[in-house]
Amino acid sequence: MSTHKAPTVILPVAEIADVQNHVSPHTIDIDKVGVKNISYPIVVLDKFNGTQHTVACINMYVNLPHRHKGTHMSRFIEILSEHRRDVSLKKIGPILEETRRRLNAQSAHIEMTFPYFIDKEAPVSKARGLMEYICNFNGSMDENGVLDLVVGITVPITTLCPCSKEISQVGAHNQRGEVRVKVRYKKFFWIEDLIRLVEASASCEVYALLKRQDEKFVTEKAYSNPMFVEDVVREIAHHLSHDDNFSWYAVESENFESIHNHSAYAYIESKQF
Amino acid sequence: MSTHKAPTVILPVAEIADVQNHVSPHTIDIDKVGVKNISYPIVVLDKFNGTQHTVACINMYVNLPHRHKGTHMSRFIEILSEHRRDVSLKKIGPILEETRRRLNAQSAHIEMTFPYFIDKEAPVSKARGLMEYICNFNGSMDENGVLDLVVGITVPITTLCPCSKEISQVGAHNQRGEVRVKVRYKKFFWIEDLIRLVEASASCEVYALLKRQDEKFVTEKAYSNPMFVEDVVREIAHHLSHDDNFSWYAVESENFESIHNHSAYAYIESKQF
Amino acid sequence: MSTHKAPTVILPVAEIADVQNHVSPHTIDIDKVGVKNISYPIVVLDKFNGTQHTVACINMYVNLPHRHKGTHMSRFIEILSEHRRDVSLKKIGPILEETRRRLNAQSAHIEMTFPYFIDKEAPVSKARGLMEYICNFNGSMDENGVLDLVVGITVPITTLCPCSKEISQVGAHNQRGEVRVKVRYKKFFWIEDLIRLVEASASCEVYALLKRQDEKFVTEKAYSNPMFVEDVVREIAHHLSHDDNFSWYAVESENFESIHNHSAYAYIESKQF
Amino acid sequence: MSTHKAPTVILPVAEIADVQNHVSPHTIDIDKVGVKNISYPIVVLDKFNGTQHTVACINMYVNLPHRHKGTHMSRFIEILSEHRRDVSLKKIGPILEETRRRLNAQSAHIEMTFPYFIDKEAPVSKARGLMEYICNFNGSMDENGVLDLVVGITVPITTLCPCSKEISQVGAHNQRGEVRVKVRYKKFFWIEDLIRLVEASASCEVYALLKRQDEKFVTEKAYSNPMFVEDVVREIAHHLSHDDNFSWYAVESENFESIHNHSAYAYIESKQF
Repeated sequence: MSTHKAPTVILPVAEIADVQNHVSPHTIDIDKVGVKNISYPIVVLDKFNGTQHTVACINMYVNLPHRHKGTHMSRFIEILSEHRRDVSLKKIGPILEETRRRLNAQSAHIEMTFPYFIDKEAPVSKARGLMEYICNFNGSMDENGVLDLVVGITVPITTLCPCSKEISQVGAHNQRGEVRVKVRYKKFFWIEDLIRLVEASASCEVYALLKRQDEKFVTEKAYSNPMFVEDVVREIAHHLSHDDNFSWYAVESENFESIHNHSAYAYIESKQF
Repeated sequence: MSTHKAPTVILPVAEIADVQNHVSPHTIDIDKVGVKNISYPIVVLDKFNGTQHTVACINMYVNLPHRHKGTHMSRFIEILSEHRRDVSLKKIGPILEETRRRLNAQSAHIEMTFPYFIDKEAPVSKARGLMEYICNFNGSMDENGVLDLVVGITVPITTLCPCSKEISQVGAHNQRGEVRVKVRYKKFFWIEDLIRLVEASASCEVYALLKRQDEKFVTEKAYSNPMFVEDVVREIAHHLSHDDNFSWYAVESENFESIHNHSAYAYIESKQF
Repeated sequence: MSTHKAPTVILPVAEIADVQNHVSPHTIDIDKVGVKNISYPIVVLDKFNGTQHTVACINMYVNLPHRHKGTHMSRFIEILSEHRRDVSLKKIGPILEETRRRLNAQSAHIEMTFPYFIDKEAPVSKARGLMEYICNFNGSMDENGVLDLVVGITVPITTLCPCSKEISQVGAHNQRGEVRVKVRYKKFFWIEDLIRLVEASASCEVYALLKRQDEKFVTEKAYSNPMFVEDVVREIAHHLSHDDNFSWYAVESENFESIHNHSAYAYIESKQF
Repeated sequence: MSTHKAPTVILPVAEIADVQNHVSPHTIDIDKVGVKNISYPIVVLDKFNGTQHTVACINMYVNLPHRHKGTHMSRFIEILSEHRRDVSLKKIGPILEETRRRLNAQSAHIEMTFPYFIDKEAPVSKARGLMEYICNFNGSMDENGVLDLVVGITVPITTLCPCSKEISQVGAHNQRGEVRVKVRYKKFFWIEDLIRLVEASASCEVYALLKRQDEKFVTEKAYSNPMFVEDVVREIAHHLSHDDNFSWYAVESENFESIHNHSAYAYIESKQF
């Protein structure tokens, strides 16, 4: 320390950090502690191509009993590095098991969000282009080793307004919407199939690449199939509630209204669990 | 319709929207339907100045019983327009009551997020500048007219790493962090006081305006007061759990680590309700 | 400093910060130095109501000649605090003049972005609701005291695809779009009038509040008025180039396509200056 | 069309879209028209591993002469699909050449932004973890086939405040910062080397994975190496201006201040071109 420092300001008593009065670290359990917003390249299972490379945003947490002051943050990154080349629904359990063990924790949590791409065929021309869907794997393992895994997908859709069609001489306002579905499930399933179910429940699907004849097709399909956000979530909830592989679901649909600067929104969550 | 249209593409059977097979709108209740992401100027209560002008991002929903196909989206905007000049915790209940009535709904929900400004004095120079805190009012009224209101605040703080201080000859890494607190409460309280509680639970507070003598003060205060994210959430949870005006709380702290490109994170939720 | 510190790690030579070899601060001029992403409540001029309260995101910079190591960041906040209750195009020059003086700088820059609200009447029912438009004031004053001021607005619009209308038996895909216009001007003008010009150059305008008869109107108006993004930017560029109060403009239009998950985009910048 | 439509609202004259008065598409050239915000998986060159998989956000545009009403948006997606597995600085020119040809355009533009990962060794423990850097390739080819290519990188760094160190008895505030560099260059270079140059010009580098001994190292290194944002941009500008492979550069540094809720910012752009 050099000697030319400015003189110390005398801290007013009320401003001095009263360290002695701080809560003892030994009395309060922490539900989740860990690392958040890690961007990491991963390799995930792909129904049609075996595997797919993508980039995930990842959070990893463990519980922290009251007798420990802090956790070991660097171990999360080590675990992530070891498993990043082989991510699938089937691996979330083993990753969480290992996290509990290496962090000496009772419970562990992982949240991964990543874009997933499907090579999609245009409806008439059959031209192909990659469509992006956002996926989430949110897993928690409790102190008994019981895994709770929620899978989420975000699917862009087209919706065409039934009211606008009904009252207008020509045309009907339509727009891009976004459906976000979360499920708990019993047996492994492909997210491709869940995406398919959502896309079939809209006025029309959205594509990366459409030629002229495809544009005619999607315009007319949407017009023949008007749906409110209410209709979209009901349609999807109907299908999910009749598929007994899904033990729980939540469905939300958001229309980026073409006639407003805000969204129309609807949400249904299953009552069973 | 003009006659020069291109001939209709024959839709492959699997692609035609199977409207008849759509779920009947008359069988599934919708939990929430309404408008989302409305940007609206509002006037809120201010402890020190009476009122304060700000701009909110607002969502408003009602439930929709299975016998109704759709809700009346424009009525949300009408209700919002009428109440925007007089927003406070005390008014959320009446707004939801009116929403239930005018939308003929059993339950109603409102979510408002807005920046709130406090004219804050620097610790030594007493120079003043406006600090921004993000506030949330999330209210739900159920079919019995019971109001559940959760108030949230986001408070920027400074944290200085105890481990780094301990192991290093000089200095200690520190960073901006963000504390997000949600509470349920019994009697009206000022968000200014909750913000104060959070700011007193960090290594140091954050300011809009600091002169040289203030910068010396905050540097030394943070150094004398090292805290992990774990310490921050425990400190705040300790204070909230000892204030019996708060019937429930959730506290999370996120450090935008100066030595990493990801965050350190901790979360505690109260068990009582 | 306590005595229980861990022993110092010997830094490998290549890793030690080579301070002596750092560039001398005395040789390189800095174009802009200052504060960024300050959230601040401001009061702006309003054509219909005199003034309007809003919240801005603000950046303020000055140049820094090579002979100075650093600038005085707190002075920007002081200037901002003094002027925040009276912001208008006419005040940007005086604010920059004062910034140059108080920071001892040759040039000064300010960038303000804020939501601006207009109470807009629905086309048929005349119901009213507040529409949000994002505004930018970007001002620079050079070493000769010459002010360069660019005003920007972001206007949501509806566009209906001419191709889709032409080739489809019924309907036409449409969507929300966003027009962003920047202008340099000669005499003071109201941003309300520039917004009006943009809204008149789309398939249809967007509203906060529409009743049933309004929805019929906007649906039919958009259908009768199909426009590509190309048409929108040309239409606006045409009007701006024929208004000799605008000495320069840049216009971009982005469609959040209802049939794709990406945007269609077009951009025109005036050649004169 | 069914016969139960509501009667047409008579449009007030001022509200009817005056299509005849619209600007003729045949008089105004469009600078850029195309597709924006396409998310696409790509494979890029990697100095250490040959290639790397990542996900890019991509914009592609061409000019549109006044005699054409619209461009062919789907062709951009086709070109992108064909080239996505082999992206490098060397390929931007050929992609733009092909874009001009297939879109019958004089000029073409591509903007790609993607996370790029480098397996980085901790300074003492040599533990490894992947660090994310955001890269941009922005290329334009004009009507003479001349390519202008700007490469950008965003590099997270640690900065420690010289003023805070100087005036304080102990400690010094520090924080995560972000450096964004853009360059034009003569011969091919590796972005890894440009990242290295930036990381060597900060108080300390940022890492994905640090063990205890590394944390001591980075804390002490930053403390021994205090730098303002002004110092950081000057240091980088100094190095870039002395490397004659770079014909132009712009450097900005933004500190996410640990003592404020806003950023400190500095910017230098080279005068030569």
